[in-house]
Amino acid sequence: MKKILILGCGFVGLNAAKELADKKGIEVTVIDRKNYHLFQPLLYQVATAGLSPADIATPVRSIFSNNRNIKTYKTEVKKIEIKENKVITTIGEFYFDYLILGLGVKHYYFNNEQWEKHAPGLKTIEQATEIRRRILESFERAEAEKDIDRKMKDLTFIVVGGGSTGVELSGAIGELSRFVFVKDFRNIDPKLARIILIEAGPRILPAFSERLSARATRDLEALGVQVWTSRKVTNVKEDVVEIGQERIQAGTVLWAAGIKACDLNQHLDSELDAMGRVIVQPDLSLKNYAHVFVAGDQAHFKDEKHGLLPANAPVALQQGKFVAQNILREINGQERKDFKYFNKGQMATIGRRKAVLEMGKLRLKGFSAWLAWLFVHIFYLIGFKNKAFVLFYWAYSYLTFRKGARLIVNKEWRFYNKTETDKTSTN
Amino acid sequence: MKKILILGCGFVGLNAAKELADKKGIEVTVIDRKNYHLFQPLLYQVATAGLSPADIATPVRSIFSNNRNIKTYKTEVKKIEIKENKVITTIGEFYFDYLILGLGVKHYYFNNEQWEKHAPGLKTIEQATEIRRRILESFERAEAEKDIDRKMKDLTFIVVGGGSTGVELSGAIGELSRFVFVKDFRNIDPKLARIILIEAGPRILPAFSERLSARATRDLEALGVQVWTSRKVTNVKEDVVEIGQERIQAGTVLWAAGIKACDLNQHLDSELDAMGRVIVQPDLSLKNYAHVFVAGDQAHFKDEKHGLLPANAPVALQQGKFVAQNILREINGQERKDFKYFNKGQMATIGRRKAVLEMGKLRLKGFSAWLAWLFVHIFYLIGFKNKAFVLFYWAYSYLTFRKGARLIVNKEWRFYNKTETDKTSTN
Repeated sequence: MKKILILGCGFVGLNAAKELADKKGIEVTVIDRKNYHLFQPLLYQVATAGLSPADIATPVRSIFSNNRNIKTYKTEVKKIEIKENKVITTIGEFYFDYLILGLGVKHYYFNNEQWEKHAPGLKTIEQATEIRRRILESFERAEAEKDIDRKMKDLTFIVVGGGSTGVELSGAIGELSRFVFVKDFRNIDPKLARIILIEAGPRILPAFSERLSARATRDLEALGVQVWTSRKVTNVKEDVVEIGQERIQAGTVLWAAGIKACDLNQHLDSELDAMGRVIVQPDLSLKNYAHVFVAGDQAHFKDEKHGLLPANAPVALQQGKFVAQNILREINGQERKDFKYFNKGQMATIGRRKAVLEMGKLRLKGFSAWLAWLFVHIFYLIGFKNKAFVLFYWAYSYLTFRKGARLIVNKEWRFYNKTETDKTSTN
Repeated sequence: MKKILILGCGFVGLNAAKELADKKGIEVTVIDRKNYHLFQPLLYQVATAGLSPADIATPVRSIFSNNRNIKTYKTEVKKIEIKENKVITTIGEFYFDYLILGLGVKHYYFNNEQWEKHAPGLKTIEQATEIRRRILESFERAEAEKDIDRKMKDLTFIVVGGGSTGVELSGAIGELSRFVFVKDFRNIDPKLARIILIEAGPRILPAFSERLSARATRDLEALGVQVWTSRKVTNVKEDVVEIGQERIQAGTVLWAAGIKACDLNQHLDSELDAMGRVIVQPDLSLKNYAHVFVAGDQAHFKDEKHGLLPANAPVALQQGKFVAQNILREINGQERKDFKYFNKGQMATIGRRKAVLEMGKLRLKGFSAWLAWLFVHIFYLIGFKNKAFVLFYWAYSYLTFRKGARLIVNKEWRFYNKTETDKTSTN
């Protein structure tokens, strides 16, 4: 019986476990801090009140309920004792024959962690609902505010970082203010809200071609988003963003600018890159520990054809599956293979009807790109019995701007949690 | 221009405002601590992972977006200066010609408020998701626990109070453990979970006939719920419930036993009943303030035919509408009328296929009662453009035990809220 331990149930862990499900002679344990797999590419929709958390999250247990060789635990990893083949968690120790790590990355404020409380990032459901609360509360405060200066501050939304998350967030806020809220307020005109997307580099979506990046800028502007490029944020305080000598007041500031490696990488006795990601071998294993694999955002993987692979869902999905297949090969006495990346391209969506998409030489923009975006996301959204139904439900809620998700849910609970496993975060 | 101020957007405030919408010469302001109207009768479904918050909550703004004479504010009432026709809130003062109060009630621990943290009640979405978190965490802890004593403690769920909320909560937990979780765990058998419903009186659902109450007991038992009647809880500590000399360990304890009047009732210069509810005139106004009305759970209303009216949704809906109509009559120079209650009966549901229903001489039980329950709840669930669609969606998620709502969402956010209007509660 080979024990395979999987840390993290993101795209890496999920796909690896699916590949190992019901295989003979194999015992799989999946550990995650949360009890659900999160479909991260749509998290910005929760943050902007388009979808509910349950629409994009599926309990890990229910995904694997029919796979008797898979156990799952909701717990947090405290330490990896790689020389002892042991992982220490809050609920006890786990031993492994093979270890698969897919713990992702976390936000990075370029050594200004004090900015986080004024400008939260978007990685977890808790952060998404907090961002949703902040956005909606800003409009509520503006409606009740009499002082014009404070009112305009509340109606200013700044998104820092012009990658896909920043583009998607600011586009969705633009849409909220220009279309969704149009008849809802009496004392303010939500269409006058300022939404500013700040990017330090010369253009947004630097991973895309210049032409698509220009198109995305125009699509954002059509939704009322002001795109500021070559502007580097130098300070974030309560309700204030400073850019060198410039100073803007904003009731809501969101962070989509930097990512940082997982702290547990320090326990792996392996070489890390400048960002702290684990440099892996061509088969995604560690140099000195061939039975330990790192994949997805957590790994630094380079090949000749593509260079350093980007930190996105397709890479994580392919690598998760590949690692599991390699382990199966080895157990069955076959040779391991090297990982080959198949570039499926990249996409970013701007509001409800526009997107940009790049796939090899194919470049789509506008509505056709958006349809492709919708199709891919529905296709990869797992855990629903009936994808056609989900498509129907989404089409409905998308086209009618479903109101139900616009809830300001208070983050405070008067009493401490009974279990406190979630207090610190590792990714 | 007559100014009508409505405090609370529950069933009372919602129905009153709908009645006053688009009426000439009338300005309506609706104030609520939340930005949504909550369909309270289904809140237990959120607490037991059957539905998501957004399924049963609708933003107040979007309900009234087409009614230009209605303004809504999310804020908290600090004080009612009834002699000055003034209400003081966290965002400023509001003056009124007519005041409608529908602030409801809050939980009551019979002067043992220290029990609350060990046994939360179910009135708000925050409480519902916290209860959901506790229930799901208990199963997760049990799965990871090696000590058999602690494991059984985690698998014990106590619901205190055998009214409809207690019956619905315990039935839903029974269903989770007996049907939903059946294949999800490896180290525990969720079917062995103990679910205990404790009622101080001689039978559960005391408001129903004895026959239906007996049937509900049997239906609960079929879902694995142990019904303990004539057992009065004397102490609640962490993981422990004491009933006189008896002592039960439970990982999850929920409170559905008592309600208490809203604190603001003290500001109304009016007679209160023993429970602190406002005793109202036959037209639901206050004795000394004919332009101030109290309705729904917040009011104590008696008539000869029905005695004291129960604290439930049909009463609140009827009274809210009635108060608005009376105000319109008076403004139009007509006489006020006295409130006449139309008894639509009562119902409680037990799991997904059983219910009890009483309506005059009609008494339904089992599946037919459940279908009636479903129909009534869909019919009154407002805010969705397409009820047929909701019905379809529910039928789907009900019958497939939709997994998505089973999320353990952490209640903690590292940073304080920017606006702190929700910190104390008035209802």
